[in-house]
Formats: sequence, C-alpha cells, structure tokens
Amino acid sequence: MLQLYYAPGTCSLASHIALEDAGAVYELKLVDFAKNEQQQPDYRAINPKARVPALATSQGILTETPAMLVYVAQRYPNANLAPIDDPFAFADLQAVNSYLCSSLHVAHAHRMRGYRWTDDSAAIAAMRRFVPESVSACYDIIEQHVLKGPWVMGPDYTIADPYLFTIAQWLEDDGVDPTRFPNVVGHRQRMLERSTVKKAIREESGG
Amino acid sequence: MLQLYYAPGTCSLASHIALEDAGAVYELKLVDFAKNEQQQPDYRAINPKARVPALATSQGILTETPAMLVYVAQRYPNANLAPIDDPFAFADLQAVNSYLCSSLHVAHAHRMRGYRWTDDSAAIAAMRRFVPESVSACYDIIEQHVLKGPWVMGPDYTIADPYLFTIAQWLEDDGVDPTRFPNVVGHRQRMLERSTVKKAIREESGG
Repeated sequence: MLQLYYAPGTCSLASHIALEDAGAVYELKLVDFAKNEQQQPDYRAINPKARVPALATSQGILTETPAMLVYVAQRYPNANLAPIDDPFAFADLQAVNSYLCSSLHVAHAHRMRGYRWTDDSAAIAAMRRFVPESVSACYDIIEQHVLKGPWVMGPDYTIADPYLFTIAQWLEDDGVDPTRFPNVVGHRQRMLERSTVKKAIREESGG
Repeated sequence: MLQLYYAPGTCSLASHIALEDAGAVYELKLVDFAKNEQQQPDYRAINPKARVPALATSQGILTETPAMLVYVAQRYPNANLAPIDDPFAFADLQAVNSYLCSSLHVAHAHRMRGYRWTDDSAAIAAMRRFVPESVSACYDIIEQHVLKGPWVMGPDYTIADPYLFTIAQWLEDDGVDPTRFPNVVGHRQRMLERSTVKKAIREESGG
C-alpha cells in the first residue's frame, strides 16, 4: 500500500488531494515538524532531503510534488487526472506544475525559510519583506496566462489543481492582496467545494 | 518544425542537447540577453515569464525545462530518453529534474538574480556570498543520493543527464569545490564526450 509522508501546512496537501481524487488506497504518515522529525535519521532514510512530501511505493520512494502528482496520474489512469496520452498537453500541464514548484513556491519560501539562501539575519528579514511583491509577480503570471478556468488547464480537472490550490491557501499570509487575483481566489473556492479536498484537509487537521 | 528559444549560458542548453539526442528537426532562435530581448513584447508574447527556454511546437508553446524535456522524451520515444511506460521509473526521473529546477537551479540563481527575491542591495550581496554553501548542499544530495552512474538514473542515459550537465557547468563559478563531488564532475566529463553535447555547445557558442 502507498504511504504518504506529510506535514500539515505544507505542499504535501497537493499529493494528498490527488491520491483522494485518484481513489487510491494509501496510508498517511505524519512527519511532525514540531518535533523536527523531518531531520531525524529515520526520516532521512526515507527522504535524504529532509522535507515532505514523500511517497513510499512498492517500487521505491518518490519525492518532489510534481513527480508524485505525475505518478498518481499515471498509476490511476481511470481517474483522468492528466492527459497522459497527449505529449504536448501532458508537457503543458507539467510546465504549470514546474512553475508552481520552482517559481511560486520558491518565492513563498523566502518568507519562512530564507536560511536556505543566506545566514545573514538582516538579509533574511529583507527577503521576508519582499515576499508580497515576489509572490504577487508569480500570481500575475498565473492569473493572466496560466489559469484557464474553471480548472487550471481549462474544462478538465488535473493534477495542477490541487497543487495551485495548496499554495494559494498561503496567499494572504504571504501578504498578497487577494482582490488582485479573482481567478486564483475563485479557483481556490471551487476546490474547497470538492469532497476530496474537504476530506484531505479534514485528515490533516486531525479531524 | 520545432523552434527552441535559447540564450547561451542558460539552462536552455539542456533542452538543446535533448533535441539533439532525440534526433529532432528544430530551429534555434537566439534570445539576445545583451539586448534585453527576453523583456521585449515580441518575446513576451512567446513566453510571458520573459525567460528562456521556450519551445514552439505545432500545438503551442512550452516553457519550463522539466516539461520541455518530458515533451522531447515522449514525442521521440524511439530515442529512449525516458522510461515513459513505467509510471514509477518515469516519476523517479522527474523527481530528479524537479529537484534540479526547484532546488539546485534556484540556489544557483541567488548568485546573479537575487533581485527576484529582494530589492535590498546588502541582502543581494549576502545571498551571493552564501551561494557556495547552498549550491554545495544540493550537490551533496546529488552526489550521495541521486546520481547513480554512469548516467544520472543508472545504466540508461535519460533527460536528467543534459539537465544536470547544464547546471553542473556553473559549479566552479558558483564557488563550489569540484573535488568534493567526483561523481558530478565525472558525469560532466562523460557528457562532454558525447557528440550531441559537443554539437549543442558549438552551436550556442556561434561556432
């Protein structure tokens, strides 16, 4: 059985929702950040990068949200979570998820995890102040060029939807003005109405 | 015919090499950073993110290196550039490329493009000073846990190889001690011996 290593409030929610969307049978494994479990040898043996998410499968362990989402879409093709038989459409979808991980999520990470890129406390504070601007710049691209509506890639729900939703939950905490991004906020609201999203959120909140 | 928008010295080289590996018919389109062409309306109509690479296809334009590499692998299956029929192995490969784009390339980008994450010049200088440490931390993961040898994913050459090679070309400029990473440096040397790599480098240098 699949095992999803997750922590509440992190991007592991995207894979959690996708597993629900796929109807997968899986087990949730909490990595307790309050106890710094992600840094302990037991977890580093699972993911040497000491981050969540990770997905243990019968063939081995996967990390990195875009890759885990692609795996879920390909392993459960009947769930139609990606246009896996159309190389262009599949790549176009993956371009979105790649942008989310390498630009939007990275901009966001400068609010809480600036220590990854400097050991200077004044620089860390300067990065944090700039997060509303850098994150908003990413949402400008998403609002104007990426999000087709009603779902990210258009009429069909895909693995880009739980990923954007997960990061967009942090929009206000990142100091971004939500009224500038009605498409993103509308998408977030549509996601919140889905039963799979509700279930994943409830499970991560211990409910 | 495919058109690859590229700039010398950037990660567009990865897609360029992959197109050569695939035996694709394509046209190179230089985006002249010295003239700031990536910011001009003509190029922003191709890629609103104002970055390279971009790949124009008959179905539309693709951006983001991991997605473009996946497209090349899936469009030219006879080149065997990815295990596209094995969901786990394909995702495992994509996890590597996702790490390269969202962790290694991002760490590297703090040397030249710190303005993406702050407007404070002292903070930008602090980020730049830290690049040898943050980039080395990524190469620690790659050296010890990712690079299986002789190619990134093991015996079979894949789309992870041109991507790691491209970024590893910047290793010394990033202030990283190459003697700490013999596997990465050995991989780089093996790549330099491939005719497709030689051709792509020669084309980008105007030779």
